[in-house]
Amino acid sequence: MNDLPLAQGGRKIYLENIPREEALSRLLEKVGDFRLGEEEIPTPEALGRVTARAAYARISSPHFHAAAMDGYALASAETSGATPVSPKEFMLGEEALPLDTGDPMPEGMDCVVMIEHVHEASPGAICIEAALSPWQNVRVAGEDVVEGQLILTAGHTLRPYDLGALLAAGITRVWVRRRPRVAIIPTGDELVEAGAELKPGDLVEFNSIVLSAFIAEWGGEALPGPILEDRFEAIETAVRDALECADVVLVNAGSSAGREDHTAAVVEKLGELLVHGVAIFPGKPTILGVCASESGARKPVLGIPGYPVSAVLALQEFVRPLMAHMAGAAPGEEERIKAFMNRKSASRLGMEEFLRVKLGQVGERMVCLPAKRGASVISSLVEADGVVRVPAHSEGVETGEEVTVELLRPLADIRGNLLMAGSHDNALDLLADELRARHHDARLSASAVGSLAGLIAVRDGEAHLAGSHLLDPETGEYNWYYIDRYLKGREVVVVNFVQREQGILTPRGNPKEIKEITVLSREDVAIVNRQSGAGTRVLLDHLMAREGLSPQDIRGYERVETTHMAVAMAVAAGRADCGLGIFAAARMLNLDFIPLERERFDFIVPEEHWETPAIRKVMDILSDKAFRDAVEALGGYNTALTGQVMAAPPKEG
Amino acid sequence: MNDLPLAQGGRKIYLENIPREEALSRLLEKVGDFRLGEEEIPTPEALGRVTARAAYARISSPHFHAAAMDGYALASAETSGATPVSPKEFMLGEEALPLDTGDPMPEGMDCVVMIEHVHEASPGAICIEAALSPWQNVRVAGEDVVEGQLILTAGHTLRPYDLGALLAAGITRVWVRRRPRVAIIPTGDELVEAGAELKPGDLVEFNSIVLSAFIAEWGGEALPGPILEDRFEAIETAVRDALECADVVLVNAGSSAGREDHTAAVVEKLGELLVHGVAIFPGKPTILGVCASESGARKPVLGIPGYPVSAVLALQEFVRPLMAHMAGAAPGEEERIKAFMNRKSASRLGMEEFLRVKLGQVGERMVCLPAKRGASVISSLVEADGVVRVPAHSEGVETGEEVTVELLRPLADIRGNLLMAGSHDNALDLLADELRARHHDARLSASAVGSLAGLIAVRDGEAHLAGSHLLDPETGEYNWYYIDRYLKGREVVVVNFVQREQGILTPRGNPKEIKEITVLSREDVAIVNRQSGAGTRVLLDHLMAREGLSPQDIRGYERVETTHMAVAMAVAAGRADCGLGIFAAARMLNLDFIPLERERFDFIVPEEHWETPAIRKVMDILSDKAFRDAVEALGGYNTALTGQVMAAPPKEG
Repeated sequence: MNDLPLAQGGRKIYLENIPREEALSRLLEKVGDFRLGEEEIPTPEALGRVTARAAYARISSPHFHAAAMDGYALASAETSGATPVSPKEFMLGEEALPLDTGDPMPEGMDCVVMIEHVHEASPGAICIEAALSPWQNVRVAGEDVVEGQLILTAGHTLRPYDLGALLAAGITRVWVRRRPRVAIIPTGDELVEAGAELKPGDLVEFNSIVLSAFIAEWGGEALPGPILEDRFEAIETAVRDALECADVVLVNAGSSAGREDHTAAVVEKLGELLVHGVAIFPGKPTILGVCASESGARKPVLGIPGYPVSAVLALQEFVRPLMAHMAGAAPGEEERIKAFMNRKSASRLGMEEFLRVKLGQVGERMVCLPAKRGASVISSLVEADGVVRVPAHSEGVETGEEVTVELLRPLADIRGNLLMAGSHDNALDLLADELRARHHDARLSASAVGSLAGLIAVRDGEAHLAGSHLLDPETGEYNWYYIDRYLKGREVVVVNFVQREQGILTPRGNPKEIKEITVLSREDVAIVNRQSGAGTRVLLDHLMAREGLSPQDIRGYERVETTHMAVAMAVAAGRADCGLGIFAAARMLNLDFIPLERERFDFIVPEEHWETPAIRKVMDILSDKAFRDAVEALGGYNTALTGQVMAAPPKEG
Repeated sequence: MNDLPLAQGGRKIYLENIPREEALSRLLEKVGDFRLGEEEIPTPEALGRVTARAAYARISSPHFHAAAMDGYALASAETSGATPVSPKEFMLGEEALPLDTGDPMPEGMDCVVMIEHVHEASPGAICIEAALSPWQNVRVAGEDVVEGQLILTAGHTLRPYDLGALLAAGITRVWVRRRPRVAIIPTGDELVEAGAELKPGDLVEFNSIVLSAFIAEWGGEALPGPILEDRFEAIETAVRDALECADVVLVNAGSSAGREDHTAAVVEKLGELLVHGVAIFPGKPTILGVCASESGARKPVLGIPGYPVSAVLALQEFVRPLMAHMAGAAPGEEERIKAFMNRKSASRLGMEEFLRVKLGQVGERMVCLPAKRGASVISSLVEADGVVRVPAHSEGVETGEEVTVELLRPLADIRGNLLMAGSHDNALDLLADELRARHHDARLSASAVGSLAGLIAVRDGEAHLAGSHLLDPETGEYNWYYIDRYLKGREVVVVNFVQREQGILTPRGNPKEIKEITVLSREDVAIVNRQSGAGTRVLLDHLMAREGLSPQDIRGYERVETTHMAVAMAVAAGRADCGLGIFAAARMLNLDFIPLERERFDFIVPEEHWETPAIRKVMDILSDKAFRDAVEALGGYNTALTGQVMAAPPKEG
């Protein structure tokens, strides 16, 4: 459909859709040959800085011939003919001088016999059993660095050993680029400082902290300013001020096309608007421009979107290369690995999508699962292990496709990921923390996809274990029926994690007087449900069927959340009158709870993973009394079976 | 052969050969459950710190239902039935309220129609053409974070977006581990501070700068101390003092088995010596131990070898995981890529070798070439692009073998590597610097392997271009004969880099009065030569043959260096009386120069690389007047042909 712009009440809409590469090159072309100023600083303080000039060695290193071994200095000519049958003797102090690694070679001597290759001959003499060649075991002058030699070019980001090489070469001060100063102007009437009391509509301003931290990591100096109201004049004044003291100006938020989005207009007034809208998701409402300072210096001014994931991506894709360009250095990038996508993920044609993913080594394969997608969900970057770029010309990633993943956490961490798929439970948080606290090479990465999807993930080699609480209405037993059906032919171990109370969550005081399942069909009651395949939904369906209720009878049946906490939140925030969930979630958000069932939440572990160190570590924790006590303290949990291997009930017939 | 220890004059030798993994686990086992203390700090200041406790959300984010788009809030129930043919109208200010992304939803409204999807109906009213579902385009409360939810476990290293998620969740202060304090004690009578006037035997102390920089990068606090003399008592006192204020104590140098190596003895006196000698190269003389402070706290004390490359490796392999262990975090590691080794490299059985390599993308393959190997050569780490671990049970890496490389510089830098193999020339330094100064995505990586080996590297796809000055004595022409012979069937472009003066380098004043080639056969003259296949050696052989001289006639003929600067250095430092080389090298080290020939130094570029951006960039520089002037200013260069494509002389017959 054709989106019609509306120009009413001063609202202008003109978001473009410029490809990322083109947007970046428009910006860098404008910056052109401009480079940050130079300064000469002491070499020991130059870690991470970018060289502004080539560094040539002022002295050779070593500047003398030095012993390369602990032993004795000799004249090589005198050693010729020495063999085990006819060893040669050298008088200590005259013909042989003891010395250690690094000592200067005495005049007239040109080799070192290693102390391990020497025998005591007579007192005051040593003997050797092999000849030495000239300069053997000698570190000759200039071995490391020769005076006049190029040590480093300009445009090099200094690493620890670079500092060593510069000092070895006598370069005690080094010319580097000034750090880029990046001003950050947070704007938005809804923003309040972190820690303030929150009123409805208030949003904690944390983007400037995130942006500042990245800028510092990339070698820049962040200049975060105070929160501004969404007024053209206020933003204009702040940008003008920032242009006087910063090399780059970032206006955060105010870059989409809403009523209060003044950044683009300010850039147009003070300079040149290059790009307004980039074909990336998240990050589309990015603004790129250049404005002039009082003195006429043209500086990049960028509008960074307000949503936190968009802000991070806009920063990484535009500000990082811009900072490198201004320093004349190669832009850094995240480590990349290959992985196999285990679930199809559709993307919008014409937009480059940055798909957040979770990773884990399951057997031989590094598998990759789509994680949360929202532009506004900063926690998605905390949970995710990496990002897959889905190109603008692609409609998404297919199941089984090999993809390149840019890592968000160290590979060592990712290798320790224990992938759990399936049902959500609050006690999993405790398990995750306990596992990590005990073992820094292990990390529980839980995907709340529902019990059934968890079993299927285990079947398909996408997870190390599943978490499941699927009721078989016929037998009243948990999980076995579904394991038989979906994991046929696979050897698995079923071990209990917890038993827990399921019930109806209602607002405090239970204003609609919801006491039992039949009430859910009342006209004035709207529920929030769980996704298809979730154990809690299976339970609801079972309870409804018992009462003769069908989905059409219940308002909100089709509205779903994927965790107990999200259901509890929907009830707490008034989006629904009630929902099914566990007691711990009700307690966390201070809701009322009408108990319905005690259910078994089990881990299903394929035989091939059962004896792996990671699963052993989990089992150790499950058998720990202190851990079980902590779980029970959450409320609504019973740990009598926790850690026990469950046996299948005898089959009939 | 059996190495016999010598116990004379207080010299004890007892270096073990413990495998790296075992050495590390001995150390970490002793450290056991010990963790660094906790402190609560403001979240915005916690970048790079390691969480000490799990962080659970204190508030939900957002804590209210917010507009997810710029547009108008409506009641979804009122929108049903709206279509393009029967649009629905809403009165502004009553039924439709304008709002921006992030604004709280007004009471009684549960969806937002995007501004792009709205038409102006009558003044003061809008109309829509499609129904909306409940909560459409609304960012519901708790979408990002739900109160009580686990945000981060303990043992997590905080990244920029983690700070954002913590602040979003109302966590304004966070419990983190104290930074590990690492004391560094440099010891050695030969050590002097950087910048001091150097006497023979003096060595610049730069290891403590390199070690401090790494420790800072890994999140620790380095406490470098003053340089100590090599006395047991001095080291003991310094270690005792350091144990009172640091978490880890490093004694640098004094860890091999020489006369002045007291570290192991100090560790034995003050605590327990766990390992003295690890089966790694470089890095063998590493010492691992634990000693007790006054209060009885047991702390790791490590002896870090004195050679700089050994020191870096010992630090990376032992101190980095130790620091992570004490913080309860996953140890970081360098990025790894796969590459194909293009030259066989032998390693010693029983030692894990850290082979420094150069990398470059040549056509489809990432190729990998061994770089310098010495333990004492810090510049080798500056030059190298990565490190290949050759396991202790391996005798080396074969040609064509696929290897895993741990990167020493960002992959973006490595992708820009232009691999040049062949002859060495001082003007290449200028070219390298100019290329990098102009293009931060290009880097000249030159391997001084000699002209002939350069041609072969190009033939075998190991380099993008060769640098060659091979004289054909029959024709007096340069390079063509060798190209015909070694690059038969390959299309190449030959372009001149420089013409330059070759001659004899002698000490200032030419004390042995060397005026011509015949003098080299004098009994009192020892030369330094270049390696086989070097153009300068071909020239020497040609000149010798013309005079009827053979290698046996010349002292030092078999002693070789691989660069002009190394030859010049050998002459300057008195290891040889003369050698063949270029004028620029003589001038750099203030030597006398007896000119012999003006020769052509060409680049040989395979047709398939000729039009690549990297080669184009080099050609642009060669045609630049300022660059040529700078080359000629080095002395002994003529740039009349520089940048010109050379045509082969007509073939006879």
